[in-house]
Amino acid sequence: MDPSQQQSTGTRLDPWVDAYAARTRGLTASQVRALFAVASRPEVVSLAGGMPFVSALPLDAMADTVARLIRERGAVALQYGSGQGDVTLREQILEVMAPVGVGAHPDDIVVTAGSQMALDLVVRVFCDPGDVVLVEAPTYVTALGVFSSYQCEVVHVPMDDEGLRPDALREAIAAVRAQGKKPKLVYTIPSFHNPGGVTQGPQRRTDVLDVVRSSGLLLLEDDPYGLLGFDGSVPRAIRADDPEGVVYLGTFSKTIAAGLRVGWAVAPHGVREKLVLANETATLCPSNFAQLTISEYLATQPWFDQVKVFRELYRERRDALLESLEALMPEGTRWTVPAGGFYSWVTLPEGLDATAMLPRAVAALVAYVPGTGFYAGGAGGHNALRLSYCYPEPDRIREGVRRLAAVVEAELELAEVFGSPEARGHRSGPSAPSPDLA
Amino acid sequence: MDPSQQQSTGTRLDPWVDAYAARTRGLTASQVRALFAVASRPEVVSLAGGMPFVSALPLDAMADTVARLIRERGAVALQYGSGQGDVTLREQILEVMAPVGVGAHPDDIVVTAGSQMALDLVVRVFCDPGDVVLVEAPTYVTALGVFSSYQCEVVHVPMDDEGLRPDALREAIAAVRAQGKKPKLVYTIPSFHNPGGVTQGPQRRTDVLDVVRSSGLLLLEDDPYGLLGFDGSVPRAIRADDPEGVVYLGTFSKTIAAGLRVGWAVAPHGVREKLVLANETATLCPSNFAQLTISEYLATQPWFDQVKVFRELYRERRDALLESLEALMPEGTRWTVPAGGFYSWVTLPEGLDATAMLPRAVAALVAYVPGTGFYAGGAGGHNALRLSYCYPEPDRIREGVRRLAAVVEAELELAEVFGSPEARGHRSGPSAPSPDLA
Repeated sequence: MDPSQQQSTGTRLDPWVDAYAARTRGLTASQVRALFAVASRPEVVSLAGGMPFVSALPLDAMADTVARLIRERGAVALQYGSGQGDVTLREQILEVMAPVGVGAHPDDIVVTAGSQMALDLVVRVFCDPGDVVLVEAPTYVTALGVFSSYQCEVVHVPMDDEGLRPDALREAIAAVRAQGKKPKLVYTIPSFHNPGGVTQGPQRRTDVLDVVRSSGLLLLEDDPYGLLGFDGSVPRAIRADDPEGVVYLGTFSKTIAAGLRVGWAVAPHGVREKLVLANETATLCPSNFAQLTISEYLATQPWFDQVKVFRELYRERRDALLESLEALMPEGTRWTVPAGGFYSWVTLPEGLDATAMLPRAVAALVAYVPGTGFYAGGAGGHNALRLSYCYPEPDRIREGVRRLAAVVEAELELAEVFGSPEARGHRSGPSAPSPDLA
Repeated sequence: MDPSQQQSTGTRLDPWVDAYAARTRGLTASQVRALFAVASRPEVVSLAGGMPFVSALPLDAMADTVARLIRERGAVALQYGSGQGDVTLREQILEVMAPVGVGAHPDDIVVTAGSQMALDLVVRVFCDPGDVVLVEAPTYVTALGVFSSYQCEVVHVPMDDEGLRPDALREAIAAVRAQGKKPKLVYTIPSFHNPGGVTQGPQRRTDVLDVVRSSGLLLLEDDPYGLLGFDGSVPRAIRADDPEGVVYLGTFSKTIAAGLRVGWAVAPHGVREKLVLANETATLCPSNFAQLTISEYLATQPWFDQVKVFRELYRERRDALLESLEALMPEGTRWTVPAGGFYSWVTLPEGLDATAMLPRAVAALVAYVPGTGFYAGGAGGHNALRLSYCYPEPDRIREGVRRLAAVVEAELELAEVFGSPEARGHRSGPSAPSPDLA
């Protein structure tokens, strides 16, 4: 009767295994995770992680800002705050969103422990087990984690070089309904997609929104990279054109610092009310310490100039990646050309398996994320992988691609031995992120 | 078909109301919440909130600590971190838990965005809809929010002046099973209970643990106030005696600062693994900024001396509360005598309703939390209320009780007009927190 006593048998078996919720049963650490522990050694060039290059921040100015905050307003900064978030920060968030065209009232905003928490809360508020969420193929890996944690069914919708395909979305929603299932959300990353590296143009956004509206679904727009376009232009958010049908997620992780864990949702009135209550249940309130630090930074530092510094820095790294891919990758390899953000999606010559190749890549001192991680249940992306260029210096990126290209070459030779004809004869070059589903 | 278009009718009705998950339907802002907005005016003495008195912190030293951290380790402090939490902080947490007797390995600890997040994740990992959680009567209000958010059924178990009653717990578990329901967790706050103000003695803890173990359930021990005992002694945590059967929740909110939002869970191996994965899904990782601030503070400041400062400060306020209650409250009022922590539980003379009385109390410029908030579905605590003494200065507390006593007197006179005989004839004095269920 007492599972805790089973431990005395000396096994490492989990005595609580029968007590877990249904949602927990599939929750296991991936093999990729174990490999990444190895890949974090300094001699490995990691093109895997999505860490922003925070060393480019004005650290002295930030140190002064925080110190003054604690000295002058410590009794507030170190105290519990509102479950909806600090009202001054919410006003400032409106300014931060002005470039993407989101007009709102501070009351429409809910501040959360990173936009990941906002994503979790939106799904918590909307999705019963079995409800369907439509997402891009591929999509953000930890969004899949959230959908799984609320036992949603995920339906992937193909992309082309402008991202989510409205025609395919319409068909997918119809197919879901024809199966008697209940679609709830369409989750999309329209700008500088993670992991796809593509961006929806203005007409594409209108078309996607039309499909979602006419289907009566809620659009969940995730926009962590919107300000990080390399030509200086900022794509207009879908939310800008439909305040009542879109929940917009934003974050300071890429424009200021990920370690602060401050993000937000902009939501229609009734939804916002639910999100605040859910936020209080999950964390009581977002951190005043982190919120007021950001608020002070926005008020006293040239924050948008810093965004421009980041843009230039990431553009240079993107160029290093693309030039190296062009110069070094074997024929038949294709990749997307990101106009902003952190990632390019690489499709290997047919017949190659990016997951199977990863241990050999790590042995060759380069790391990436295999494409299967970006598909629910690993059901796609087998011959694809995500490369990130946000964190390593350009020379390291070039060295990383050199190592990766050699590994792919070796894999192709191996495939040739096993007579895989589809591994040969394709030209290399830019691609749409999801040719395996398109 | 398009709910977002219903907004154009100009109503404030929520067009998404039919799209919410089942768990969301009961999620509405309480009337008490609206009243608290009024109660936050400075002329109101609030004995309602649980805000720690962070102004007693060494703000200059903390400012210097954070500034140095950002200057010297900004690239780490402002970056994403591990989903389990910073390893150095986890080692320091072991030292912080040494006084309560919890021996563990840093790997057994999961750091979260406040211990509220840890509580949410434990329930997420263990509880399917309909699973039963056994809790004290009354219990922590936002724990009830978590249980409700995962659609658990809550069963309240009576307390006496030593807290949770093991005999009643055993009966309650048996009754739940007899109904064909599935009990999963026993949630308890053994030290300086919120809102009960009582503490389980050593024998009581052993007896509670025996019942939980022999039932094969997991014990969830919430210990935010353990170091805040007024006689300087620290109750030994239940987890100290059963590492495999107890998940222990700790927080820095009451020993350092609530605004940092850093808490933790100590869990058996297999459970810890699930909690880390769930933590990553919910928030990616706890804030490095907040974690390293705490780590530096613990390493460089006399943090335990500061805990002693808090103890002395809260003891003085507790005394002010109890002396005023003794001197001023009308006959028939009873209250618990907390040996630590933030709260006393007050039972009004029979026939009075603490929720109905609240607007009149706020009009008389004093606020409290009505007892019904601490019972699932508001099913108990009608003639009880929680008073907190953590935040107001002693003189404000005395003034608050004076105002409250006058309101209760007036309510009693009113009850007499309506001929409520049970409102008279009871002696006032200390009580167990839950006489209405005992």
